Amino acid sequence: MICDEERAARALLLRASEPVTPNLIRHVRAVGAVQAITDIRRGTAVGAIDVAALAHRIMDFSGERELAAAADQGIRLVCPGDEEWPAGLDDLAGQVADSFGLWVRGPLSLAETCARAVAIVGTRAATDYGATVAVEFAAGLADQGWTVVSGMAFGIDAAAHRGALARHGATVAVLACGVDNAYPRAHRSLHEQICATGLVVSEHPLGAAPQRPRFLVRNRIIAALSAGTVVVEAAPRSGARSTARHAGELYRHVMAVPGPISSTTSAGCHQLLRDRPDTVLVTKVDEILEQVGEMGQFADRVTGPVRRRDLLGPAVSRVLDAVPVIRAAPVARIAATAGMREDAVAAALAALAVNGLVEADSDGWRMTRLGRDERRADSGPEELPLGWW
Amino acid sequence: MICDEERAARALLLRASEPVTPNLIRHVRAVGAVQAITDIRRGTAVGAIDVAALAHRIMDFSGERELAAAADQGIRLVCPGDEEWPAGLDDLAGQVADSFGLWVRGPLSLAETCARAVAIVGTRAATDYGATVAVEFAAGLADQGWTVVSGMAFGIDAAAHRGALARHGATVAVLACGVDNAYPRAHRSLHEQICATGLVVSEHPLGAAPQRPRFLVRNRIIAALSAGTVVVEAAPRSGARSTARHAGELYRHVMAVPGPISSTTSAGCHQLLRDRPDTVLVTKVDEILEQVGEMGQFADRVTGPVRRRDLLGPAVSRVLDAVPVIRAAPVARIAATAGMREDAVAAALAALAVNGLVEADSDGWRMTRLGRDERRADSGPEELPLGWW
Repeated sequence: MICDEERAARALLLRASEPVTPNLIRHVRAVGAVQAITDIRRGTAVGAIDVAALAHRIMDFSGERELAAAADQGIRLVCPGDEEWPAGLDDLAGQVADSFGLWVRGPLSLAETCARAVAIVGTRAATDYGATVAVEFAAGLADQGWTVVSGMAFGIDAAAHRGALARHGATVAVLACGVDNAYPRAHRSLHEQICATGLVVSEHPLGAAPQRPRFLVRNRIIAALSAGTVVVEAAPRSGARSTARHAGELYRHVMAVPGPISSTTSAGCHQLLRDRPDTVLVTKVDEILEQVGEMGQFADRVTGPVRRRDLLGPAVSRVLDAVPVIRAAPVARIAATAGMREDAVAAALAALAVNGLVEADSDGWRMTRLGRDERRADSGPEELPLGWW
Repeated sequence: MICDEERAARALLLRASEPVTPNLIRHVRAVGAVQAITDIRRGTAVGAIDVAALAHRIMDFSGERELAAAADQGIRLVCPGDEEWPAGLDDLAGQVADSFGLWVRGPLSLAETCARAVAIVGTRAATDYGATVAVEFAAGLADQGWTVVSGMAFGIDAAAHRGALARHGATVAVLACGVDNAYPRAHRSLHEQICATGLVVSEHPLGAAPQRPRFLVRNRIIAALSAGTVVVEAAPRSGARSTARHAGELYRHVMAVPGPISSTTSAGCHQLLRDRPDTVLVTKVDEILEQVGEMGQFADRVTGPVRRRDLLGPAVSRVLDAVPVIRAAPVARIAATAGMREDAVAAALAALAVNGLVEADSDGWRMTRLGRDERRADSGPEELPLGWW
């Protein structure tokens, strides 16, 4: 866990330093963000950083204010060194600004959620065929305890998120704008749903608008957060193909779904399968798992199914532990048990309810049967006599 | 060219020796068919051949009668050593009876026709999608001067033959029954069309019925006659997949067409693409030619387009040379010019007419413009002064 001052400095850099240069990334990696900002202000930062322009932009903003404004909306900045920082993102180190940190919104732990994650991406102009495949693959992955990562765009992306949500699975939306910006507009309720039960992620500061270069960087984060990327439908030379290329460069599995040769939206998938010998044709969820399940560092299939509560962030997890099993309790008592503020507890309870782990009645909140099962499974081994296994 | 006695002996073996054993094949390769039959009759044939049973069956038949009955129907036995014997079939040597010879019906030269040939195969239960792809691929290959080889079965096979015929291309049907047996019955007119303009081929004697083991042997011949095999639609574990496996074993190119993952008739193609890394996904004719065009021994793209008349067998070619260019002549005069029997000339003229090279008017037969162009192109280089190229 990094200190508050360093986190604020990174929030400031994410606001002020776009487009970020490799020299700045190297400098921050070498001396930390706090020192880098001091160096920039003093004009002593090394390398080809345009210090004057950057120093000027830094003057206008405050990292502390960035963090406070974010916290007001339940948004946190996850940085390298944090427990929640996914190891997979380090493969991007030195390439993009997300090595400073990622803005995250939602009740789950980013690291835990992405420990078993597959990206499902594709064209905005999806056909019914492609959208159906995306929904079914995402639902099937969710059923097996895998997280579905995508970009919340029209077409395949939205279908993938919806397929995971339909099975109460974890889903991560990586945006090319601020995490508070529900873009595209038509996906406002999808954005709300993912914020409530999954994770919305971006390297861009709050309020940032989607811009073309941001989409390309976004694709790289989608690839880095996942053990493999499945391209469901793609036009030749499309963004989905760029995500697949990044996945290959990051040594992630690249998979493509075939379709009718008469369909232009399958042409990009067929091109991938012809041009890149490392692209694997997949037609069902088991074939996806066959690929990503082999990657020891991302997935360990012998550990059995992932429990929903394993994916929860520490705050939400603490609230779940404070919820009574039999007789419901009001929010105030749960907050007292958890030692947390009431409004934070209320938000966590809502997220837990959408995940089916708690339920409300006239007296307050209590565990559902699913919540009890997950808690029992979780505490099981500790209750066994020593030496039992 | 082998002698008449040896050809008759091979005709007899093809009739009497099913199922043929590897020992018999080896014996015939070592001493020839004439000597092998003498050895069988004397009971001195080497190896584990069941000589008694074979000698008994041989008594009932005569190779000369086999050849005469075939000739009556315009059917010939093409044997190793004949000019018309395709080099590709030698890759099967020692495996199946067709190393004794193949029964052939149709006006083209088997060797020339298969010098640039692609097999298009697939399920009998083809969807509209698969049938359309088969027709379009076959038509496209025909347009580029490539022969389409298939098995004349329902579904993909028939669509492939029809696509080639629609463009007046050469097509070869390899049957799992005698070449005189139009099986399946519903394909009687397709059988007639291919006999008239292409080639119908089988290792089985005249009148032989289609039987299950014969289909598997047939698939091997389809693969051997082609530079590559395209599987358009196939159920998992299907005959088309067996053809593809043979193609791979014979170092031919194996190609598969993708389709919707929801289609069971594309599942065999997807399985091929997943299981066999040497299988290439193809979505258009150019991608097929990109594969097979590389195989020097089967195809030489720099020689330019194949001329229709290059594919003609020697007899039909001789008739074409005897057809007048301007003023039509009756069959009798053409037969006199060619030095051939009138009935043979009449059959050859019919085949040439279907290929668009000759046409009839009230006075008899003459060349079409296409026929003249092909003849001019053919004789062109010889008329040029020496040293021109």
